[in-house]
Amino acid sequence: MTFPPLREELRGLEPYGAPQLSPELVPVQLNVNENPYGPSPECVADIAASVAAAATTLNRYPDREFVELRAELAAYLSRDTPHGIAPEQVWAANGSNEVMLQLLQAYAGPGRSALSFAPTYSMYPEYARDTGTRWVQGRREDDFSLDLARARDLVESEQPAVVLLPSPNNPTGTALPPEAVSMLCEAAGDGLVVVDEAYGEFRRAGVPSALELLPEHRNLVVTRTMSKAFALAGARLGYLAADPALCDGIRVVRLPYHLSAVTQAVALAALRHRDELLGKVDELRAERDALVDWLRGEGFEVADSDANFVLFGELADRHAVWQAMVDRGVIVRETGPEGWLRVSVGTPDEMKTFKVSLTAAVAEVTQDHATEEQA
Amino acid sequence: MTFPPLREELRGLEPYGAPQLSPELVPVQLNVNENPYGPSPECVADIAASVAAAATTLNRYPDREFVELRAELAAYLSRDTPHGIAPEQVWAANGSNEVMLQLLQAYAGPGRSALSFAPTYSMYPEYARDTGTRWVQGRREDDFSLDLARARDLVESEQPAVVLLPSPNNPTGTALPPEAVSMLCEAAGDGLVVVDEAYGEFRRAGVPSALELLPEHRNLVVTRTMSKAFALAGARLGYLAADPALCDGIRVVRLPYHLSAVTQAVALAALRHRDELLGKVDELRAERDALVDWLRGEGFEVADSDANFVLFGELADRHAVWQAMVDRGVIVRETGPEGWLRVSVGTPDEMKTFKVSLTAAVAEVTQDHATEEQA
Repeated sequence: MTFPPLREELRGLEPYGAPQLSPELVPVQLNVNENPYGPSPECVADIAASVAAAATTLNRYPDREFVELRAELAAYLSRDTPHGIAPEQVWAANGSNEVMLQLLQAYAGPGRSALSFAPTYSMYPEYARDTGTRWVQGRREDDFSLDLARARDLVESEQPAVVLLPSPNNPTGTALPPEAVSMLCEAAGDGLVVVDEAYGEFRRAGVPSALELLPEHRNLVVTRTMSKAFALAGARLGYLAADPALCDGIRVVRLPYHLSAVTQAVALAALRHRDELLGKVDELRAERDALVDWLRGEGFEVADSDANFVLFGELADRHAVWQAMVDRGVIVRETGPEGWLRVSVGTPDEMKTFKVSLTAAVAEVTQDHATEEQA
Repeated sequence: MTFPPLREELRGLEPYGAPQLSPELVPVQLNVNENPYGPSPECVADIAASVAAAATTLNRYPDREFVELRAELAAYLSRDTPHGIAPEQVWAANGSNEVMLQLLQAYAGPGRSALSFAPTYSMYPEYARDTGTRWVQGRREDDFSLDLARARDLVESEQPAVVLLPSPNNPTGTALPPEAVSMLCEAAGDGLVVVDEAYGEFRRAGVPSALELLPEHRNLVVTRTMSKAFALAGARLGYLAADPALCDGIRVVRLPYHLSAVTQAVALAALRHRDELLGKVDELRAERDALVDWLRGEGFEVADSDANFVLFGELADRHAVWQAMVDRGVIVRETGPEGWLRVSVGTPDEMKTFKVSLTAAVAEVTQDHATEEQA
């Protein structure tokens, strides 16, 4: 007997997750696209007071339908579309990855397929694997955009139950134009098109949210998270907007009371501080644009970014550069196509350290390789 | 096209969940086995302070391995077994239902089966359905115990990947003797035996926990929750103890960062107040025993209970009795075999109201039926 009796397809796999190195060892953490700014003292105090109020009745189960939170999330999303978003169009769970899992449990699963276009978020195939959904991988072009005609052909021929379209894409930062979303919604027929806007608040001026398209396509789902723009990665709150009937379908597979009373209280408190938090988003967008310019100035290839991270290349030995940066106290992410690295946008001080560290790391690695070649 | 494109087996299903009636309408809530005692002001203050501390870094992802919480849960569980429990034997998730889902994702799923013995917790078949696991339903005897020889035969012939054995059972309150657990662990061969001790802390004196058997059976898993004994239903924290290799297997399917930093902080705070909280458990156990005596004194059939609820019957029209009690401001649960009702153990005052309300409801329903028969 092989112990433990894991499913065959899971044997030998490593759990998903970026390396977690302690901030004591590596003080500049630019590897998991966190918001570098913690909540303000006022926001922290509001969170603590809200949790204290909720804690007096923690012996009771939470509101299974999280009515107040759905209403506040809907009000927040309504900023991004002239059509508005109603509370019954909103669903939430513990992180957008739980939202995705529930979507695949209800609308994909055994005998159905899900499709995305690589390079993209590496959790997508895991959601498929863990729900028994067949995974279909399309490809992006060399500039990380979608060739729309090819993408449509693939959707039409595969007829996936769910198409996963991050916009902006992770790890490339590439946003999807509205006409691409509309075309793929039409091509998907009975299938759902999920536009994953985890980084949606960081998009550049003039780039619309797919939320605007909801009235036109009842098979469209737009997901968001409070982890990034709301600086709430530690609180785990992901959500979506879609046709109310799609939300009702998820309710059949959601675990009862999946959102704790504490999570609901924390999310509501953060939403009350949205102006402060979104002000920081504007700073980060400016910092991101400056970072792209600097990298290009240094001669790197840089993908256009509508997110709080930037993918750059091409490095002859990206792992060596990554390691040389870690040695200097800066961690970025070794992800995306071979030769590229992804860096999250940090504070101005962190960006200064990043630039110095990257320059030194590239010089060191180039020197080492030159020495090896001579040897 | 049928919209939404839900999976066939989910169409027309209602989401799981007891009716949630507002406490303003029905002040005595004895239907979902909640602990009637909220945390003390000291415990609430500790929770709030812990969350305030965690909130300053909520922009960062939580500790994916929840190292501190695993250690504290292990220390707590070690009270219930002379062999002790090590941190690497512990796993936790958002409610024991997420623990169960993860167990089935890793160890059951398509092509495998899960088995339990009815009447039992009505979520079990849903975990199976949502993971593509074939569901096998055994039966309990008329007194809600297991016929061990028949149970063993069923496990041996079906060879399920997972056997789910609540102890005490929900909704009957019946605990499982250690020899039954051992026999079924042996019969299960390669399969896992999950003893669901959600209500384990309420067991009567002399009833051991299955935790004692862990060293003997590496396929044994014991699950617990903080919802009941720790009065923390609103915070969603379930956990298990098992062979470390079994915990490692779950890590492959768990969503990354599934346990929020806030949830970890709240659970750790509650664990620091375990003596206060478990003192209330002792009060509730005494109240439960008194309730069983009273119900038997009134002539009801009552299942022996090692939990914080009591199943009683048989009522000719249980729905009418349930409704007549709701009309009097008391809600119990219409669950278990036809003719039986389940009541959670509340405060002494709530139990007084329950008794008056049940007596009046039964009299009213009996009267109504007599009138109908005359008509």
